[in-house]
Amino acid sequence: MEIKIMKNVLDRNKNKANEVRSLMKENNVLLVNLISSPGAGKTTLLDCTLEKLKNTFKIAIIEGDIATDRDAQRLKKHKVPIVVINTEGGCHLDSHSISKVLPKFNLENLDVIFIENVGNLVCPSHFDLGESFKLALVSTTEGDDKPIKYPMLFREAKVILLNKIDLLEYTNFNRSSFLKDLNNVNGKVPFFEVSCTANINMEQWYDWIFNEIISK
Amino acid sequence: MEIKIMKNVLDRNKNKANEVRSLMKENNVLLVNLISSPGAGKTTLLDCTLEKLKNTFKIAIIEGDIATDRDAQRLKKHKVPIVVINTEGGCHLDSHSISKVLPKFNLENLDVIFIENVGNLVCPSHFDLGESFKLALVSTTEGDDKPIKYPMLFREAKVILLNKIDLLEYTNFNRSSFLKDLNNVNGKVPFFEVSCTANINMEQWYDWIFNEIISK
Repeated sequence: MEIKIMKNVLDRNKNKANEVRSLMKENNVLLVNLISSPGAGKTTLLDCTLEKLKNTFKIAIIEGDIATDRDAQRLKKHKVPIVVINTEGGCHLDSHSISKVLPKFNLENLDVIFIENVGNLVCPSHFDLGESFKLALVSTTEGDDKPIKYPMLFREAKVILLNKIDLLEYTNFNRSSFLKDLNNVNGKVPFFEVSCTANINMEQWYDWIFNEIISK
Repeated sequence: MEIKIMKNVLDRNKNKANEVRSLMKENNVLLVNLISSPGAGKTTLLDCTLEKLKNTFKIAIIEGDIATDRDAQRLKKHKVPIVVINTEGGCHLDSHSISKVLPKFNLENLDVIFIENVGNLVCPSHFDLGESFKLALVSTTEGDDKPIKYPMLFREAKVILLNKIDLLEYTNFNRSSFLKDLNNVNGKVPFFEVSCTANINMEQWYDWIFNEIISK
Protein backbone atom coordinates (compact mmCIF):
# COMPACT_ATOMS: atom_id res chain seq x y z
CA MET A 1 0.00 0.00 0.00
CA GLU A 2 2.59 2.54 1.07
CA ILE A 3 4.91 1.37 -1.71
CA LYS A 4 2.17 1.88 -4.31
CA ILE A 5 1.43 5.37 -3.00
CA MET A 6 5.13 6.22 -3.12
CA LYS A 7 5.27 4.97 -6.71
CA ASN A 8 2.30 7.18 -7.62
CA VAL A 9 3.96 10.17 -5.97
CA LEU A 10 7.19 9.54 -7.86
CA ASP A 11 5.34 8.95 -11.16
CA ARG A 12 3.43 12.21 -10.82
CA ASN A 13 6.66 13.96 -9.87
CA LYS A 14 8.41 12.50 -12.93
CA ASN A 15 5.64 13.64 -15.28
CA LYS A 16 5.78 17.20 -14.00
CA ALA A 17 9.59 17.09 -14.08
CA ASN A 18 9.46 16.21 -17.77
CA GLU A 19 7.20 19.22 -18.36
CA VAL A 20 9.70 21.45 -16.54
CA ARG A 21 12.53 19.97 -18.59
CA SER A 22 10.70 20.70 -21.84
CA LEU A 23 10.02 24.27 -20.77
CA MET A 24 13.70 24.76 -19.96
CA LYS A 25 14.72 23.39 -23.37
CA GLU A 26 12.25 25.65 -25.17
CA ASN A 27 13.77 28.64 -23.41
CA ASN A 28 17.34 27.34 -23.60
CA VAL A 29 17.84 27.62 -19.82
CA LEU A 30 20.18 25.32 -17.88
CA LEU A 31 18.55 24.11 -14.64
CA VAL A 32 20.99 22.93 -11.95
CA ASN A 33 19.79 20.96 -8.90
CA LEU A 34 22.31 21.54 -6.09
CA ILE A 35 22.16 18.92 -3.32
CA SER A 36 24.19 18.45 -0.13
CA SER A 37 23.99 17.81 3.60
CA PRO A 38 23.04 20.74 5.81
CA GLY A 39 26.00 23.08 6.10
CA ALA A 40 28.20 21.64 3.36
CA GLY A 41 28.35 25.06 1.72
CA LYS A 42 25.58 25.26 -0.91
CA THR A 43 24.78 28.93 -0.32
CA THR A 44 28.44 29.87 -0.16
CA LEU A 45 29.05 28.07 -3.47
CA LEU A 46 26.20 30.01 -5.05
CA ASP A 47 27.53 33.23 -3.54
CA CYS A 48 30.98 32.74 -5.15
CA THR A 49 29.53 31.46 -8.42
CA LEU A 50 27.24 34.48 -8.72
CA GLU A 51 30.13 36.82 -7.98
CA LYS A 52 32.19 35.17 -10.73
CA LEU A 53 29.54 34.65 -13.44
CA LYS A 54 26.72 37.15 -12.93
CA ASN A 55 28.23 39.65 -15.35
CA THR A 56 28.76 36.99 -18.02
CA PHE A 57 25.46 35.10 -17.81
CA LYS A 58 21.89 35.80 -16.79
CA ILE A 59 21.41 33.78 -13.63
CA ALA A 60 18.46 33.17 -11.30
CA ILE A 61 18.16 31.26 -8.03
CA ILE A 62 15.47 29.08 -6.46
CA GLU A 63 16.09 28.70 -2.72
CA GLY A 64 14.53 25.62 -1.12
CA ASP A 65 14.33 25.78 2.66
CA ILE A 66 12.27 24.14 5.36
CA ALA A 67 11.80 27.46 7.10
CA THR A 68 13.18 31.03 6.87
CA ASP A 69 14.60 32.97 3.92
CA ARG A 70 18.09 33.20 5.38
CA ASP A 71 19.86 31.75 2.36
CA ALA A 72 18.05 34.12 0.01
CA GLN A 73 19.02 37.02 2.27
CA ARG A 74 22.68 36.02 1.91
CA LEU A 75 22.43 36.16 -1.89
CA LYS A 76 20.25 39.23 -2.44
CA LYS A 77 23.28 41.55 -2.73
CA HIS A 78 23.91 40.04 -6.19
CA LYS A 79 20.64 41.51 -7.43
CA VAL A 80 19.69 38.46 -9.48
CA PRO A 81 16.12 37.08 -9.44
CA ILE A 82 15.63 34.84 -6.38
CA VAL A 83 12.53 32.89 -5.43
CA VAL A 84 12.21 31.15 -2.05
CA ILE A 85 10.26 27.91 -1.64
CA ASN A 86 9.59 27.12 2.00
CA THR A 87 8.72 23.43 2.33
CA GLU A 88 7.36 23.95 5.88
CA GLY A 89 8.88 20.78 7.22
CA GLY A 90 9.17 18.95 3.92
CA CYS A 91 12.51 17.26 3.39
CA HIS A 92 12.97 17.92 -0.34
CA LEU A 93 11.75 19.99 -3.27
CA ASP A 94 9.58 18.36 -5.91
CA SER A 95 8.86 19.19 -9.54
CA HIS A 96 5.40 20.61 -8.74
CA SER A 97 6.87 23.26 -6.44
CA ILE A 98 9.46 24.15 -9.11
CA SER A 99 6.80 24.32 -11.82
CA LYS A 100 4.70 26.65 -9.68
CA VAL A 101 7.46 29.23 -9.19
CA LEU A 102 8.86 29.26 -12.76
CA PRO A 103 6.29 31.86 -13.95
CA LYS A 104 7.97 34.31 -11.56
CA PHE A 105 11.00 34.36 -13.87
CA ASN A 106 11.37 35.75 -17.36
CA LEU A 107 12.76 32.50 -18.77
CA GLU A 108 13.51 33.91 -22.20
CA ASN A 109 15.96 36.24 -20.55
CA LEU A 110 17.87 33.64 -18.48
CA ASP A 111 20.87 31.38 -19.14
CA VAL A 112 20.85 29.32 -15.96
CA ILE A 113 18.77 28.73 -12.82
CA PHE A 114 20.48 27.23 -9.78
CA ILE A 115 18.12 25.40 -7.42
CA GLU A 116 19.43 25.12 -3.86
CA ASN A 117 17.62 22.05 -2.58
CA VAL A 118 16.80 21.39 1.09
CA GLY A 119 19.92 20.37 3.05
CA ASN A 120 19.60 16.61 2.94
CA LEU A 121 21.70 13.88 1.31
CA VAL A 122 18.82 11.41 1.04
CA CYS A 123 15.35 12.53 -0.05
CA PRO A 124 16.25 15.17 -2.67
CA SER A 125 18.07 12.45 -4.64
CA HIS A 126 14.75 10.64 -5.24
CA PHE A 127 12.88 13.61 -6.73
CA ASP A 128 13.59 14.69 -10.28
CA LEU A 129 12.92 18.45 -10.50
CA GLY A 130 13.21 18.60 -14.27
CA GLU A 131 16.82 19.67 -13.85
CA SER A 132 19.46 19.54 -16.57
CA PHE A 133 21.68 17.79 -14.01
CA LYS A 134 22.36 17.27 -10.31
CA LEU A 135 25.37 18.91 -8.68
CA ALA A 136 26.49 17.12 -5.50
CA LEU A 137 28.41 19.04 -2.87
CA VAL A 138 30.13 17.28 0.01
CA SER A 139 32.61 18.67 2.53
CA THR A 140 35.76 17.28 4.13
CA THR A 141 34.40 17.94 7.61
CA GLU A 142 31.54 15.48 7.02
CA GLY A 143 33.98 12.56 6.86
CA ASP A 144 35.21 10.44 3.98
CA ASP A 145 32.44 7.82 3.94
CA LYS A 146 29.61 9.76 2.32
CA PRO A 147 29.74 8.32 -1.25
CA ILE A 148 29.40 4.73 -0.01
CA LYS A 149 26.84 5.53 2.70
CA TYR A 150 24.62 7.78 0.55
CA PRO A 151 25.28 6.28 -2.89
CA MET A 152 22.21 7.46 -4.81
CA LEU A 153 23.19 11.13 -4.98
CA PHE A 154 26.80 10.39 -5.91
CA ARG A 155 25.68 7.90 -8.57
CA GLU A 156 23.30 10.40 -10.17
CA ALA A 157 25.36 13.60 -10.01
CA LYS A 158 26.90 14.94 -13.21
CA VAL A 159 29.56 16.77 -11.20
CA ILE A 160 30.79 16.51 -7.61
CA LEU A 161 32.54 19.15 -5.53
CA LEU A 162 34.46 18.25 -2.37
CA ASN A 163 34.29 21.50 -0.41
CA LYS A 164 36.20 22.81 2.64
CA ILE A 165 39.44 21.34 1.32
CA ASP A 166 41.20 24.03 3.40
CA LEU A 167 40.01 22.22 6.55
CA LEU A 168 41.29 18.81 5.43
CA GLU A 169 44.39 19.00 7.60
CA TYR A 170 42.33 19.52 10.76
CA THR A 171 40.16 16.46 10.18
CA ASN A 172 40.70 12.71 9.96
CA PHE A 173 39.27 12.69 6.42
CA ASN A 174 41.00 9.91 4.47
CA ARG A 175 41.34 11.17 0.92
CA SER A 176 42.30 7.85 -0.68
CA SER A 177 39.43 6.05 1.04
CA PHE A 178 37.00 8.73 -0.21
CA LEU A 179 38.31 8.51 -3.77
CA LYS A 180 38.20 4.70 -3.75
CA ASP A 181 34.55 4.69 -2.59
CA LEU A 182 33.62 7.44 -5.02
CA ASN A 183 35.25 5.49 -7.84
CA ASN A 184 33.15 2.44 -6.94
CA VAL A 185 29.94 4.47 -6.94
CA ASN A 186 30.60 6.76 -9.92
CA GLY A 187 34.03 6.37 -11.45
CA LYS A 188 33.86 8.83 -14.31
CA VAL A 189 32.21 11.87 -12.75
CA PRO A 190 34.00 15.23 -12.97
CA PHE A 191 35.24 15.93 -9.46
CA PHE A 192 36.86 19.05 -8.00
CA GLU A 193 38.44 19.59 -4.58
CA VAL A 194 37.68 23.16 -3.63
CA SER A 195 37.24 25.66 -0.84
CA CYS A 196 34.62 28.29 -1.53
CA THR A 197 35.56 30.44 1.46
CA ALA A 198 39.36 30.13 0.99
CA ASN A 199 39.06 30.34 -2.84
CA ILE A 200 41.00 27.15 -3.55
CA ASN A 201 40.64 25.49 -6.98
CA MET A 202 37.45 27.44 -7.65
CA GLU A 203 38.58 28.19 -11.20
CA GLN A 204 38.20 24.48 -12.01
CA TRP A 205 34.52 24.67 -11.06
CA TYR A 206 33.96 28.02 -12.79
CA ASP A 207 35.51 26.66 -16.01
CA TRP A 208 33.37 23.53 -15.85
CA ILE A 209 30.07 25.33 -15.26
CA PHE A 210 31.01 28.02 -17.83
CA ASN A 211 31.35 25.29 -20.45
CA GLU A 212 28.06 23.70 -19.41
CA ILE A 213 26.25 27.00 -19.80
CA ILE A 214 27.71 27.91 -23.17
CA SER A 215 27.12 24.43 -24.60
CA LYS A 216 23.55 24.05 -23.31
CA MET B 1 -4.94 12.45 -0.41
CA GLU B 2 -1.19 12.46 0.18
CA ILE B 3 -1.65 14.33 3.44
CA LYS B 4 -4.15 11.73 4.67
CA ILE B 5 -1.78 8.88 3.78
CA MET B 6 1.05 10.65 5.61
CA LYS B 7 -1.20 11.06 8.64
CA ASN B 8 -2.00 7.33 8.57
CA VAL B 9 1.70 6.49 8.33
CA LEU B 10 2.49 8.77 11.27
CA ASP B 11 -0.44 7.42 13.31
CA ARG B 12 0.63 3.82 12.77
CA ASN B 13 4.19 4.80 13.60
CA LYS B 14 3.04 6.51 16.81
CA ASN B 15 1.06 3.46 17.93
CA LYS B 16 4.02 1.15 17.46
CA ALA B 17 6.29 3.71 19.13
CA ASN B 18 4.07 3.65 22.20
CA GLU B 19 4.38 -0.16 22.29
CA VAL B 20 8.17 0.15 22.11
CA ARG B 21 8.10 2.76 24.88
CA SER B 22 6.05 0.47 27.12
CA LEU B 23 8.41 -2.43 26.49
CA MET B 24 11.37 -0.24 27.44
CA LYS B 25 9.67 0.85 30.65
CA GLU B 26 8.84 -2.74 31.62
CA ASN B 27 12.48 -3.64 31.19
CA ASN B 28 13.80 -0.37 32.64
CA VAL B 29 15.88 0.40 29.54
CA LEU B 30 16.68 3.96 28.41
CA LEU B 31 16.26 4.34 24.63
CA VAL B 32 18.15 7.26 23.08
CA ASN B 33 17.41 8.44 19.53
CA LEU B 34 20.56 10.13 18.19
CA ILE B 35 19.91 12.45 15.24
CA SER B 36 22.23 14.66 13.18
CA SER B 37 23.28 15.65 9.68
CA PRO B 38 25.54 13.25 7.81
CA GLY B 39 29.05 13.51 9.21
CA ALA B 40 28.33 15.55 12.35
CA GLY B 41 29.96 12.84 14.45
CA LYS B 42 27.24 10.42 15.61
CA THR B 43 29.38 7.30 15.39
CA THR B 44 32.36 9.04 16.97
CA LEU B 45 30.16 10.21 19.86
CA LEU B 46 28.97 6.64 20.40
CA ASP B 47 32.55 5.39 20.17
CA CYS B 48 33.70 7.74 22.97
CA THR B 49 30.59 7.17 25.06
CA LEU B 50 30.98 3.40 24.86
CA GLU B 51 34.63 3.69 25.83
CA LYS B 52 33.69 5.78 28.87
CA LEU B 53 30.55 3.97 30.07
CA LYS B 54 30.61 0.38 28.85
CA ASN B 55 32.17 -0.91 32.07
CA THR B 56 29.62 0.93 34.21
CA PHE B 57 26.41 0.22 32.28
CA LYS B 58 25.08 -2.46 29.97
CA ILE B 59 24.81 -0.74 26.62
CA ALA B 60 23.55 -1.82 23.19
CA ILE B 61 23.50 -0.07 19.83
CA ILE B 62 21.06 0.07 16.91
CA GLU B 63 22.78 1.37 13.78
CA GLY B 64 20.48 2.91 11.17
CA ASP B 65 22.05 3.27 7.76
CA ILE B 66 20.85 3.61 4.20
CA ALA B 67 23.47 1.15 3.02
CA THR B 68 26.56 -0.62 4.43
CA ASP B 69 27.46 -1.62 8.00
CA ARG B 70 30.43 0.75 8.22
CA ASP B 71 29.30 2.46 11.42
CA ALA B 72 28.71 -0.87 13.14
CA GLN B 73 32.19 -1.99 12.05
CA ARG B 74 33.67 1.08 13.74
CA LEU B 75 31.99 0.17 17.05
CA LYS B 76 32.40 -3.60 17.14
CA LYS B 77 35.70 -3.37 19.09
CA HIS B 78 33.63 -2.45 22.16
CA LYS B 79 32.02 -5.90 22.12
CA VAL B 80 28.56 -4.61 22.99
CA PRO B 81 25.44 -5.92 21.22
CA ILE B 82 24.97 -4.07 17.91
CA VAL B 83 22.16 -4.51 15.40
CA VAL B 84 22.25 -2.85 11.97
CA ILE B 85 19.09 -1.67 10.22
CA ASN B 86 19.70 -0.93 6.55
CA THR B 87 16.88 1.28 5.28
CA GLU B 88 17.88 0.62 1.62
CA GLY B 89 17.32 4.18 0.53
CA GLY B 90 14.89 5.15 3.30
CA CYS B 91 15.65 8.50 4.86
CA HIS B 92 14.79 7.68 8.50
CA LEU B 93 14.15 4.85 10.93
CA ASP B 94 10.59 4.18 12.08
CA SER B 95 9.13 2.47 15.15
CA HIS B 96 8.27 -0.68 13.22
CA SER B 97 11.88 -1.29 12.24
CA ILE B 98 12.95 -0.71 15.87
CA SER B 99 10.24 -3.04 17.18
CA LYS B 100 11.38 -5.77 14.79
CA VAL B 101 15.00 -5.77 15.97
CA LEU B 102 14.38 -5.48 19.72
CA PRO B 103 13.97 -9.28 20.15
CA LYS B 104 17.63 -9.58 19.16
CA PHE B 105 18.58 -8.02 22.51
CA ASN B 106 18.24 -9.41 26.01
CA LEU B 107 16.39 -6.34 27.30
CA GLU B 108 16.31 -7.48 30.92
CA ASN B 109 20.05 -7.31 30.89
CA LEU B 110 20.43 -3.79 29.41
CA ASP B 111 20.54 -0.27 30.87
CA VAL B 112 20.53 1.77 27.68
CA ILE B 113 20.19 1.40 23.91
CA PHE B 114 21.56 4.14 21.67
CA ILE B 115 19.90 4.35 18.27
CA GLU B 116 22.05 6.00 15.61
CA ASN B 117 19.46 7.28 13.17
CA VAL B 118 20.07 7.87 9.45
CA GLY B 119 22.19 10.99 8.87
CA ASN B 120 19.46 13.55 8.17
CA LEU B 121 18.29 16.65 10.05
CA VAL B 122 14.76 16.53 8.65
CA CYS B 123 12.86 13.25 8.32
CA PRO B 124 14.04 11.43 11.50
CA SER B 125 12.56 14.31 13.54
CA HIS B 126 9.06 13.36 12.36
CA PHE B 127 9.19 9.70 13.38
CA ASP B 128 8.83 8.74 17.04
CA LEU B 129 10.79 5.51 17.60
CA GLY B 130 9.46 4.95 21.10
CA GLU B 131 12.59 6.60 22.45
CA SER B 132 13.01 7.97 25.95
CA PHE B 133 14.33 11.13 24.33
CA LYS B 134 15.99 12.59 21.26
CA LEU B 135 19.64 13.63 21.36
CA ALA B 136 20.51 16.24 18.70
CA LEU B 137 24.09 16.53 17.50
CA VAL B 138 25.24 19.45 15.37
CA SER B 139 28.77 20.47 14.43
CA THR B 140 30.52 23.83 14.12
CA THR B 141 31.58 23.04 10.55
CA GLU B 142 27.92 22.89 9.44
CA GLY B 143 27.48 26.60 10.13
CA ASP B 144 25.62 28.48 12.83
CA ASP B 145 22.17 28.57 11.23
CA LYS B 146 20.97 25.02 11.83
CA PRO B 147 18.58 25.58 14.79
CA ILE B 148 16.56 28.20 12.93
CA LYS B 149 16.64 26.40 9.57
CA TYR B 150 15.79 22.93 10.94
CA PRO B 151 13.75 23.87 14.02
CA MET B 152 11.81 20.67 14.61
CA LEU B 153 14.75 18.58 15.81
CA PHE B 154 16.13 21.33 18.03
CA ARG B 155 12.67 21.96 19.51
CA GLU B 156 12.13 18.29 20.35
CA ALA B 157 15.57 17.33 21.62
CA LYS B 158 16.08 16.79 25.34
CA VAL B 159 19.78 17.53 25.00
CA ILE B 160 21.91 19.14 22.30
CA LEU B 161 25.61 18.71 21.64
CA LEU B 162 27.57 21.16 19.50
CA ASN B 163 30.42 18.98 18.23
CA LYS B 164 33.78 19.80 16.56
CA ILE B 165 34.27 22.77 18.85
CA ASP B 166 38.02 22.30 18.23
CA LEU B 167 37.43 23.39 14.60
CA LEU B 168 35.53 26.55 15.57
CA GLU B 169 38.52 28.81 15.00
CA TYR B 170 38.91 27.62 11.39
CA THR B 171 35.30 28.35 10.45
CA ASN B 172 33.09 31.43 10.25
CA PHE B 173 30.68 29.89 12.79
CA ASN B 174 29.11 32.75 14.77
CA ARG B 175 28.65 31.43 18.28
CA SER B 176 26.40 34.22 19.54
CA SER B 177 24.14 33.97 16.50
CA PHE B 178 23.86 30.20 17.02
CA LEU B 179 23.00 30.61 20.71
CA LYS B 180 20.46 33.34 19.99
CA ASP B 181 18.67 31.17 17.42
CA LEU B 182 18.83 28.11 19.66
CA ASN B 183 17.39 30.13 22.51
CA ASN B 184 14.46 31.16 20.30
CA VAL B 185 13.77 27.57 19.30
CA ASN B 186 14.42 25.80 22.60
CA GLY B 187 15.69 28.06 25.35
CA LYS B 188 15.97 25.65 28.24
CA VAL B 189 17.57 22.61 26.68
CA PRO B 190 20.81 21.27 28.20
CA PHE B 191 23.53 22.15 25.73
CA PHE B 192 27.20 21.18 25.65
CA GLU B 193 29.99 22.40 23.38
CA VAL B 194 32.26 19.43 22.82
CA SER B 195 34.80 17.79 20.59
CA CYS B 196 34.60 14.02 20.55
CA THR B 197 37.87 13.57 18.67
CA ALA B 198 39.84 16.19 20.64
CA ASN B 199 38.17 15.18 23.94
CA ILE B 200 36.98 18.68 24.85
CA ASN B 201 34.22 19.08 27.47
CA MET B 202 33.20 15.45 27.04
CA GLU B 203 32.90 15.02 30.81
CA GLN B 204 29.88 17.37 30.72
CA TRP B 205 28.12 14.99 28.36
CA TYR B 206 29.22 11.86 30.22
CA ASP B 207 27.93 13.32 33.51
CA TRP B 208 24.62 14.26 31.93
CA ILE B 209 23.99 10.87 30.30
CA PHE B 210 25.24 9.06 33.44
CA ASN B 211 22.55 10.86 35.45
CA GLU B 212 19.89 10.05 32.87
CA ILE B 213 20.76 6.38 33.00
CA ILE B 214 20.84 6.07 36.79
CA SER B 215 17.57 8.02 37.20
CA LYS B 216 15.65 6.16 34.47
